[in-house]
Amino acid sequence: MTESLPEPGKNRSGFSSIDLSSFGIREGISETIVSTGLKFPNAAPIGIVVKGKRTFVRLFKGTHTWTNVFKEEYLVANIVYDSLLLVRSTFFDLDSSEFDYVSAYGLNFPILRKAAAWVVFECTNIKDTNQALVADLTPIKAGFNEDNWKILPVPNRGFNAVLEATVHATRYQLTGDEKYLELIRHYESLASKCGGENEKKAMKLIYEVLGL
Amino acid sequence: MTESLPEPGKNRSGFSSIDLSSFGIREGISETIVSTGLKFPNAAPIGIVVKGKRTFVRLFKGTHTWTNVFKEEYLVANIVYDSLLLVRSTFFDLDSSEFDYVSAYGLNFPILRKAAAWVVFECTNIKDTNQALVADLTPIKAGFNEDNWKILPVPNRGFNAVLEATVHATRYQLTGDEKYLELIRHYESLASKCGGENEKKAMKLIYEVLGL
Repeated sequence: MTESLPEPGKNRSGFSSIDLSSFGIREGISETIVSTGLKFPNAAPIGIVVKGKRTFVRLFKGTHTWTNVFKEEYLVANIVYDSLLLVRSTFFDLDSSEFDYVSAYGLNFPILRKAAAWVVFECTNIKDTNQALVADLTPIKAGFNEDNWKILPVPNRGFNAVLEATVHATRYQLTGDEKYLELIRHYESLASKCGGENEKKAMKLIYEVLGL
Repeated sequence: MTESLPEPGKNRSGFSSIDLSSFGIREGISETIVSTGLKFPNAAPIGIVVKGKRTFVRLFKGTHTWTNVFKEEYLVANIVYDSLLLVRSTFFDLDSSEFDYVSAYGLNFPILRKAAAWVVFECTNIKDTNQALVADLTPIKAGFNEDNWKILPVPNRGFNAVLEATVHATRYQLTGDEKYLELIRHYESLASKCGGENEKKAMKLIYEVLGL
């Protein structure tokens, strides 16, 4: 399953023939679930930032993703439309059975079985600061998962509300600031009104995690 | 381009072989842009509601969509990932060149050229109240637009922010309540941070419409 190594330096130079925009990664911040860890796979929601011609990521210190990227210099961005998986991967470790593997450069990269698409990135120009790591991203392999790609992701305010609530829940955990609880309650009501079963389960899990 | 008429009563009975979930219309409220008007096409953002086995829509009185559905008893739900089109169709009439047509039941239905997918619905059990019309929806024809379907819609908080800001902008227009302005400003900052060019243009248009 392994593949041949690239010419040395080819990717370090930033060259890539993969068109990120056809995988939906465009100007702005694309909310993906990043999987890392060649030996022990891990997943967490991370925004992939595109600004002009630069694609990069910011990872907070102390997380598994930070540790893995610092050591291995690769990450996989998974495009996922499952709000419950988004919440689970934020607050819990996923089971190893939830990962699949794709090979590139003689390495096996963990991808999420539920991903509609995935992009393996090489991380370059890694800059480590007090709080975070910033790395430029060069795509080296990408693919679609046909089985997860049968259902169109129609815009749903309930799904979006779970995404917002998750962001605020992590900020609440970090700061304890009650203003985040107010926002989470607002989004819970939106998820309940506009979402489906998955959004309701996802919000219930956020409430459980926060002890609400 | 027209097609044969169905057996009488076939669709009035609610029978349809189209699987809505494969077009992303699932439990909860799917945010689509609805096109109506067999002679003079019109488009406006409308949520398609699925609750259990029932698919229905609620249309506010006085809108073009309300008038067309009341008269013609059909509507098309367009699945669109363009935040600027969402805002434009909320506050302005689209140009006739932005519509295409699909035929079913000997009629030509307007669809949006920018739609990734579309579903033509027959509207039944129309109930007209003081403020709104509620109609059950039975899909009679659906399709994908391959050209618009090349780019994955990766979750983007900027896109979602434009959707929220649009909802609050229409409420502000209706009520003048300043609390909506506060929400719109919150989402403007999110669209600016997480969105791309299209989201920035869309928010600028909302500000122009509201005179901000």
